[in-house]
This record gives sequence, C-alpha cells and structure tokens, in this order.
Amino acid sequence: MIDVTMGSNVSLYQQIYEQLKHKIISGELEEGTRLTSTRALAKNLCVARNTVESAYAQLCVEGYVSSKPGSGYYVMNMADDSLFIHLAPHLEKCSEKVGTVSQVDSTEYSHDFQFYNLEHASFPFALWRRLSAEALASFDARKICFYNDKQGELDLRTEITKYIRDSRGVRCTPDQVVLCCGTQHALDVICTLFHDGNRTVAVEIFGISVGPEGIDLDELDRTSTQLTYITPSHQFPTGVVMPIHKRVQLLQWATKRDGIIIEDDYDSELRYHTRPIPSLHSTDINGRVIYKGTFSKSLSPGLRMSYIILPKWLLPKYHTVFAGYNATISWFQQKIISLYMERGHWERHIRKVCLHNKKKHDILIKTIHEQMGDRVRIHGNNAGLHFLLEFVQGEKQEWLIEKAREHKVRVYPTRPYWHRKERCRENFILMGFSMLSEKEIVEGIALLKKAWFEQ
Amino acid sequence: MIDVTMGSNVSLYQQIYEQLKHKIISGELEEGTRLTSTRALAKNLCVARNTVESAYAQLCVEGYVSSKPGSGYYVMNMADDSLFIHLAPHLEKCSEKVGTVSQVDSTEYSHDFQFYNLEHASFPFALWRRLSAEALASFDARKICFYNDKQGELDLRTEITKYIRDSRGVRCTPDQVVLCCGTQHALDVICTLFHDGNRTVAVEIFGISVGPEGIDLDELDRTSTQLTYITPSHQFPTGVVMPIHKRVQLLQWATKRDGIIIEDDYDSELRYHTRPIPSLHSTDINGRVIYKGTFSKSLSPGLRMSYIILPKWLLPKYHTVFAGYNATISWFQQKIISLYMERGHWERHIRKVCLHNKKKHDILIKTIHEQMGDRVRIHGNNAGLHFLLEFVQGEKQEWLIEKAREHKVRVYPTRPYWHRKERCRENFILMGFSMLSEKEIVEGIALLKKAWFEQ
Repeated sequence: MIDVTMGSNVSLYQQIYEQLKHKIISGELEEGTRLTSTRALAKNLCVARNTVESAYAQLCVEGYVSSKPGSGYYVMNMADDSLFIHLAPHLEKCSEKVGTVSQVDSTEYSHDFQFYNLEHASFPFALWRRLSAEALASFDARKICFYNDKQGELDLRTEITKYIRDSRGVRCTPDQVVLCCGTQHALDVICTLFHDGNRTVAVEIFGISVGPEGIDLDELDRTSTQLTYITPSHQFPTGVVMPIHKRVQLLQWATKRDGIIIEDDYDSELRYHTRPIPSLHSTDINGRVIYKGTFSKSLSPGLRMSYIILPKWLLPKYHTVFAGYNATISWFQQKIISLYMERGHWERHIRKVCLHNKKKHDILIKTIHEQMGDRVRIHGNNAGLHFLLEFVQGEKQEWLIEKAREHKVRVYPTRPYWHRKERCRENFILMGFSMLSEKEIVEGIALLKKAWFEQ
Repeated sequence: MIDVTMGSNVSLYQQIYEQLKHKIISGELEEGTRLTSTRALAKNLCVARNTVESAYAQLCVEGYVSSKPGSGYYVMNMADDSLFIHLAPHLEKCSEKVGTVSQVDSTEYSHDFQFYNLEHASFPFALWRRLSAEALASFDARKICFYNDKQGELDLRTEITKYIRDSRGVRCTPDQVVLCCGTQHALDVICTLFHDGNRTVAVEIFGISVGPEGIDLDELDRTSTQLTYITPSHQFPTGVVMPIHKRVQLLQWATKRDGIIIEDDYDSELRYHTRPIPSLHSTDINGRVIYKGTFSKSLSPGLRMSYIILPKWLLPKYHTVFAGYNATISWFQQKIISLYMERGHWERHIRKVCLHNKKKHDILIKTIHEQMGDRVRIHGNNAGLHFLLEFVQGEKQEWLIEKAREHKVRVYPTRPYWHRKERCRENFILMGFSMLSEKEIVEGIALLKKAWFEQ
C-alpha cells in the first residue's frame, strides 16, 4: 500500500519512488511481483499518470524493477543481503583509463562528434576574470608563496563535501577529500596507496567483461585483483547502468576480498530523463568505495581538476605514504573554484549545462530517428555526452568511420575501449555531442545519413 | 699560456676560466700542478687581481682545482675520460624526496628560519593580474574547454627550452619537455617510465652516503639500482657541490649500467658569489640524464609547476606509457607563465630575486659571524635558500631547536634528511632564509645568540 501526502516538501514522484524502493529492499515486494499498472496506481493515488511513470522509470533504470513491454513492471532479484537498506545505485567496470583518442589524421572535419572536449561558449569567462582578480587581491593570496596542503585548500574541500552530499548522497568530511589534477593523477594516487612497504607497486589491471548489467562479477571473482575501477552510473563507453542487485554483489565482493572499488562518477551531473542515479558510495557502509568526481565534464577539462574521497580507515595510510607531498593544483585556481562554489555559481552552472546538453541530446536522438529510422539503434541511457550507435544491417565500424570522414564528419571507433578486441562488436560506433551546437548536430546527422545510406 | 682579449664580448673572467678549464680537461695541466698565483697571473695579463680570483674560485667550486690555504691552487684528478670534453658541472644524491617538514607544534614563532616557502612580497601580483586577464581574453582561451597536450602547451615548452639553454647549458627541443605539477609528480612520471610491461613498478630507493664531494660512487655501484636522484649543483641539505671528476664518474656509471640520473636542478638560479654551476645535463653526451627544473624556488611554490627534460631515446616509450594521459596543469596557468617568459619578465624576475636573496644571504652570514664568532661554522656554498650550521662545541640539535623554540625562533633538524640516522651528525642544524626579510634575519640571529650562548 502506498500513501502520498499532497503539499509535502517531498515531491509526489519522490514519495512513490522511495516507498516502492523500500518495499523492494525490505522484501515486502518479492522478486517477480508485478507492480500495479501506472494507470491504476495514478488513479488510486489521485496523481498524474506521468508522475507514477517517472517513479517506475527511475526504479527501472536503477535495477529494482524491470519493464516487460505490453505486460508491466516486475520486481527484480535483490541478492540476499540485508546490509544495504540504504540508498540504491548502479555499477560496472572499465579496464582502461578514460582518455582522449590519439590518431594521426590530417582531415579538416566540419563536424566532430567527439565526447571529451566541451563547447567554448559553456565556460564562464567573464565571471572567471572577476573571481581571478578577487583571488589575486585577497588577503590569503600570500599562500601563493607557500607549499600548500597536499589534499587541497580546506575551503574548497568543504565546498566539495557539501556539493557531493546534496547531489550524490556521498557523506564525508573535508579530511577525506584529496584534490587531484585529473583522472590519471587520481588513479596514480590510489595505486600508490596500495604499494607495499617496499615501495613496490603490484597493481594488475585485468579486463573484465561488461554485459548489459555491467561488469561480469564471476569473472572478477576469478581474478586475484583487489582493486576495481568502475563507472557505475554511466559506463564508458557502453552507457550501461548497473542494477542494484549487481551493486550489492560488488560491494559484497569488495568486503569479502578486502578489496577497493574506485567509483568514477565522471558525468553524474548529466542525466536528462531520469533523476540522477545515487552513487555507489552512498550504498557502501563498509568503506570499500573510493569515490571520484571531476570538474572536467561540466565546467572545463582544461582546469585539470578532480577529487577523490578516501574512506576514513585509509587516511592514516594516506598520510604516511604521502608524507612530504604537496598540493598538485595551483593555489590560485583552488581559490577561484572555491569562490565559484561558495557563491552558488557552480550549482547554477550545473543546472544550465544539464539543460543545455539535454536539448542537444534530445535533438540528436530525434534527428537520428528521423534521418536513419530503424537502420540504427541508439545505446545511451539518456545521460552524459556520448552514446553508442548500432547498425542493424551489420555495417562495420571501419567503413562507417571512413565514409563519415569522406564527408568531413568525425565519429569514433569503439575498439580502443575493448580490452579483448575479439569481443568488440563491429557494427557499433561511438559518438558524442560535447563540442557541437544544436545546429551543427542537425547538419552533422544529415551528412552522416548521406555518407552511410545514400550511396 | 693564457691569452686574454680586451674589449671582447666574452668577459675577462670567462676567458681565463674557459682556457684554464680546457687545459685541465685536455690534460695539458696535469693533476697536482700548481696554478700560477692570482697575483702573478693578474700582473702578466694586465687584469685586475679579483678577475683572476673569480675565475680560480669558479674552477675551485666546480672541482677542477683545489685551494690550499697559504699555498695556492692545485689541479685535481680528472678521472681518465676523454668523452667529456664539454662543459663541467657537479653532483650528488638524495634518497628522500625534497618536501616540507611536518611537525605538530603549536608555538607561535616570531622568526622562522625555514627554507621552502617564499616571501610574500616576491610574487608579482599586479603583473599576474594583468596577464591573467589577457590570458582569459585571448583567442586561444577556448582551449580551456579542451583536454590539452599531456606534455604541456607548445609555447610554454619552447620558452622553457630557451631559458634552460641560455642559463643552464641544457640543449633540448620542446618535444623533450614534460610539464609536471611539482617534484613529486615529476618523480612519479619518471618512475612510471621505468615500469616493466606488466605495469609492475620495481623502483628501489637506496640511501647512498654523501661525502664532502657528494654521493659515494663505490656504494652506489654496489647496489642494483639503475635510477639515481641527485641535486648536483647544490645538494639538499648539505649544500655540497660535486666536483667534476665525480660527475664524470657518475656519468660513466650510468652509461655502464644503462642507468638514468635524475638531475634535480632545484635552485640553480640562486648562486651568490660564483657563476651558476653548469648543469650535469650539459656534460652528458650519452643521454643518461633527465634534467628537472622548477618554478617553485624563484617564483612561487603555490603555482605547482616544474618540468623535466627527457632524453630523445626515451620519447617513444614516454608516448607509449602515457598514451591517453592529459596535461596536469591548468591551461590558464600555462598561458600566463608562457606570456610571462615570452616578454622577458621571468629573466628580470630571476635577476631581481637572486640579488635580493644575495643581500639577505650576505647579511645572514655576516650577522652569524659577528654574533656567534667561531662557535659555529657555516656550510653552504653561497647558494640557494638554506645552509647547515655546525656547532663547534658539540651542542646537540634537539637542544638547539628547543632553546630556539623557547625564544620563538624556529630552526630545523637535519635528521629527517639522513637515510641512515646513525650517520647524521648531532651538532648540526638546518636553517633557511626564504621567508624572512633582512631586518627579521638580523633580529632572529640576535635571538638565537641569546638562546644558545647566553644562559
């Protein structure tokens, strides 16, 4: 039985979602149970049907229920675990560091469907100039002459804890935050933490299969690794979201193995048709997750700034291993970003960027449907800045990329991101829309239609 | 026979120095030969005696000759090597990363003789504000929205090659330069380069003894290490400069071992009574030296910026190992520093800072002599921002530090920098003058005299 309170601070959507989630986690709704239809529940509760649909869609994307077209929503298997009566997120694994694609290619592209650099217009130049001047004139600008805190300035770390608590459910204190100059540096710090006393690193990176529900846990279990790097809310590059039962299993794996899960929450701000998916960190009660966030996807990759949240129990080791280390980010830049967050600019920016990208995303999807119809399928989950395009008639990625190139349009191979190349399906390409305007997106898709389907 | 040309572009000092050096390297002047006295040579050449004295002093500090008080200058042993008829520098080893000293201490010091943070007044705030605004308004500010070159921006790397060529004799091209966000990051990059293919690091750090001529080469040779980290022009913390014959031997060791020498040239700009000592890199013709420079000692530690110069043969490996990596320093900051160097501000700044620190250094030395007389000996080599103070009557560092603390003056232990603690001599302390003004230096020494010698 579900109740909703009209006029509450909590939205109707949220009330329905939370109550159903609780019933599923607590076992009140058993595996296989069919949920009341959206129409019937909306009628019972006297709410709009799309409110119920939103709640069901969110439960679906988070893996609590599955949708069978024409039949309804069914409760999924939760794994036998009573530890995790908390929030509920998603997960999966990537064996490669997320990086830029290097390729020698002298083509002058007119439309580049890439997924890492951002649109020039999105950066707040005027505001940055004002805040720079303010940082330079501030009393504590004298700190530019110091070697500063290896974890980053306390002000900025405090702002970050507030932001990830409110937006991602990550609960931590500023002493757990370590600022890093990018993803690679963050991973290097973590790997260094797992050196043994003789300063010999023994980190092995295995490639683990990613299925429709994310990382293959059986395969992970057969390796000897204790460190797993995942992008749980939006796997790169497949875009899959790991359902809750897999997340629970992964946390169990880490607890059993004394292992660590690195949760790279790289584009969590950018979700377009469902609520943000809660972080894996928010479900972890045993301190097995190192959370990683970044300013690269929403603000600027050129600032080189990300952060990791270390579990409390790891802090003494961090301070021992990194004794004598200094900050890795310029004091000025830390000060500017700290002012930027403190004054609410960051939250406003996120909202603006998310809305802007949603518009671009929706136009892109709509244009692909219109132009290419059922010759392609889009795999993306309405999030982030990239998606995979599947070619139903089996066209090969090499041919697709070359044809696009002849029309001065750049699209990307998926192969570099597959550890076992033989498992990479050939009829997929990787596309992004991070650097194109709405107009350019429409133009680019028209050119691609010509390139691929009008011979 | 030495000739000098009056009115030449090359200073008289330089002419005398170069000719004598050449004669020593070529073997024309044999080991043990006594040089003509400064008085006689000055008379012969019709130049001022202090010109000759400067040339002899430089040869002395670089290890070509040694001075016997009351007797004169004698040519030293050059090691049997004909490969190195080039320039001539100095060298030695430090097993610990140079870092800040962490210590829980709630004393409110009135005078802190530390050696890493800089004086607030030394940073060019107004100019930085102008250049920041210019960088933000520049056409290529759009690059803030990109993931940029992992080695750093080409403009800046080009400026750095010009600077180290002119000031340190380091000859390299911009493709050999890698910008890093500090010493620790630079060392991490280098260690990562020496991973094996399985991504297993096996870097062992041995502590090698440092004698009056720097690192103990026999001891180094008995280890299995292939990677040696040294501060050749001004060892930290002893201040010793390795003489030329040791440098030659070290380069031979590296060639024989297929080893790499990391030359940390951290404070090369700051030499007060001799010319800068040529870098080890300038003597290396076999590509065994990775040169490292920094902006921390002369401009600002808070900018977090240093650079390494990789040998050409190592570049393909660098690009393989770091494929997919991005820059570690904010694009804006790179742009600002690039403008700063391009317009000659950096060179002017170095001259200003060097002069300013020379004044402080000389006042410090003079004040110590006046106040403490022959109860202490200064070990420093007229360079950098730190020196060692030896207590002739055997006072212990713990007592000295505590007594100073009671007078609200902070001085530092040497013990943290000794790998084998039992070899650290107890009657030494470490002092710096990087953060104190001339006035504060004089006051601080007066307080120390009171603390140590007026019971």
